[in-house]
Amino acid sequence: MIYLDNAATTRPYDEVIELISQMNKDFFANPSSQHSAGYMCEKKLSEAKETIMRAIGAKSGNFVFTSGGTESNNQIFYGVLKNAIKRCPHIITSAIEHPSVLEAVRDLEAQGCEVTYIAPDSAGVISASDVAEAVRDNTKIVSIMAVNNETGAINPIADIAKKVKEKNPDIVVHSDCVQAMGNIRISVDKWGVDAISLSAHKICGPKGVGGLYIRDKVRVLPLILGGHQQKNLRSGTENVPGIVGFAKAAEIVEKTFSQKMMSLYALKEELIQKLSGEEGIQINNPGEKYSSHIASIRVKNVRSEVLLHALENYDICISAGSACSTNKPAPSHVLLAQGFDRKHIEETIRVSFGAHTDIDEVSAFCEILVKEAAALSRFTRA
Amino acid sequence: MIYLDNAATTRPYDEVIELISQMNKDFFANPSSQHSAGYMCEKKLSEAKETIMRAIGAKSGNFVFTSGGTESNNQIFYGVLKNAIKRCPHIITSAIEHPSVLEAVRDLEAQGCEVTYIAPDSAGVISASDVAEAVRDNTKIVSIMAVNNETGAINPIADIAKKVKEKNPDIVVHSDCVQAMGNIRISVDKWGVDAISLSAHKICGPKGVGGLYIRDKVRVLPLILGGHQQKNLRSGTENVPGIVGFAKAAEIVEKTFSQKMMSLYALKEELIQKLSGEEGIQINNPGEKYSSHIASIRVKNVRSEVLLHALENYDICISAGSACSTNKPAPSHVLLAQGFDRKHIEETIRVSFGAHTDIDEVSAFCEILVKEAAALSRFTRA
Repeated sequence: MIYLDNAATTRPYDEVIELISQMNKDFFANPSSQHSAGYMCEKKLSEAKETIMRAIGAKSGNFVFTSGGTESNNQIFYGVLKNAIKRCPHIITSAIEHPSVLEAVRDLEAQGCEVTYIAPDSAGVISASDVAEAVRDNTKIVSIMAVNNETGAINPIADIAKKVKEKNPDIVVHSDCVQAMGNIRISVDKWGVDAISLSAHKICGPKGVGGLYIRDKVRVLPLILGGHQQKNLRSGTENVPGIVGFAKAAEIVEKTFSQKMMSLYALKEELIQKLSGEEGIQINNPGEKYSSHIASIRVKNVRSEVLLHALENYDICISAGSACSTNKPAPSHVLLAQGFDRKHIEETIRVSFGAHTDIDEVSAFCEILVKEAAALSRFTRA
Repeated sequence: MIYLDNAATTRPYDEVIELISQMNKDFFANPSSQHSAGYMCEKKLSEAKETIMRAIGAKSGNFVFTSGGTESNNQIFYGVLKNAIKRCPHIITSAIEHPSVLEAVRDLEAQGCEVTYIAPDSAGVISASDVAEAVRDNTKIVSIMAVNNETGAINPIADIAKKVKEKNPDIVVHSDCVQAMGNIRISVDKWGVDAISLSAHKICGPKGVGGLYIRDKVRVLPLILGGHQQKNLRSGTENVPGIVGFAKAAEIVEKTFSQKMMSLYALKEELIQKLSGEEGIQINNPGEKYSSHIASIRVKNVRSEVLLHALENYDICISAGSACSTNKPAPSHVLLAQGFDRKHIEETIRVSFGAHTDIDEVSAFCEILVKEAAALSRFTRA
């Protein structure tokens, strides 16, 4: 299998899989239990938190372990706005966010919040000035993703945070970093953001685990209520094996960062070189504005679903759009916002690399793509 | 280690641990992905759902995989009431529920819902008539746990559902079955309930996974919004390895049910026999009103924390109360509701058995308890 759908999810590192097994055997106690087995698990949680805080460049603050990026994104909005909804607070986000941001924001909009959706430029990038200009007196939260999950577009989060805080330092600046972690360098302290969302399964960690970093003194209410775990920021027995697996993945990402950046760069370069000049094939996201882990490719006159299924015969896994929305027949909201026409969008596939991707896999994929593109587009035109 | 804190959490079955590893290696794709690797994962989810539906005696309906019992309990309340809050709907629950029910209900009460908290009888059991009598014209949901997590008290869920539905069939009847699963026979169809909450880690499954059964035609909104996964009942990439591990644990529970019931019965009998007649030791929950997996024991003149730490020297893990509330200095709300005085509560420990508990461990525990109880109570009185 040539797995080129790493933006959807990744295969966990063997070390992570092994560690989770070991934790399930030896550290299965409830970290809230008062006996020593519980205390040992509590300690594992603290260590995991420290590892992740280091990996995201946070010297202080809270880190809430959640069930994933979606829950983290939900919590930051409801957690900041819940008690303020009656006063119609203003939200700034972008038109190219993940559904877990957009759906939460739409729900809050229906409850009375005001929302500004910043449009990206034609490259798919959000302008920091556009965000800052949208700030109003009642703006409570700004949330812009660091790396887009369909195009890999990198947004200027540090600049956004700076410009927004200049207007009003009390505005909570959040960034969905689910696609950023492991693909660009994250530094919450240097960026000056108040909160970021993470997901373990996008960085070769386990599914069902994620996190929400929250800067000290930023008040965020829990989304899930109960036994007051995690300083009452998120109730529910902590998934210790999963959390420790997440931290291990974050540690590996941190340790191998430069090497991985070079690898991703080489993989995308290989793809661009192999596909450039091929008739009807167009790379939507070349250059430094984009994270190297995603290649957005248009194959003229071939619908993405058709191409996806043709590639399946070669055991190649790619995506027709993002995997984040199930059974969604609508064209990508990200590419629409970027100004692509409907036909272009329907003919765009997403190829995404990860820590396990090999350059030979990319070469093989490109050769097959060229062959199939030619065959399928002929068929379509016939 | 003698682990007698299975009501807090359990050690996963070896088969479950092995299966999760295998899933992480071979079925890591995103079930929302349209390629065959994604489809295979989607299929694993369907199979897991079927297994769990069988284990809980549900012929039809939805089963939403969540991050655990706490999220499931939160979702049923917010999911049923969210759009009705302005009309001040009425909630019926009990005074002995888990914090994940009580805190959600208190939050909704603060938002304008009316709530009736049914008190248990002196044995800690909720009366079906009491529940039915509390039904009002605006009652929207009734939620009573099947088995209490501190005393093991078994509530008459079938009778509650019947009596409530007789008054108004439109009321959603929910039961928190987190402590029930694997300890009493659950049958949502026979019980006639509309929804139940489950947690995998209480049945020797993985942490971070649980579920919410919802009967067909019962409208429950999602708590977590995003990519519309799980028929839009719960967004976020499904934790396929965890879910499959949960289903495996449910399958083992189902297959070994009679055997486990006999084992739990024998374990509690052994404990009662060994401790009966011992000075200053009292079993709070003997007899058939209680699930056999929990023994609530009072040791006169010895504070539970002191006893817990004394037993730690023998590598025995028990609980001073429940592990569900962290760092909670308040006395148990469950035993208070049952009418126990403060001193009695402060001198009560919880011992809980699971699938891995051995009768020799229980015997050893009893002998040590008697010895330590005598030593510590002398010390206290001195």
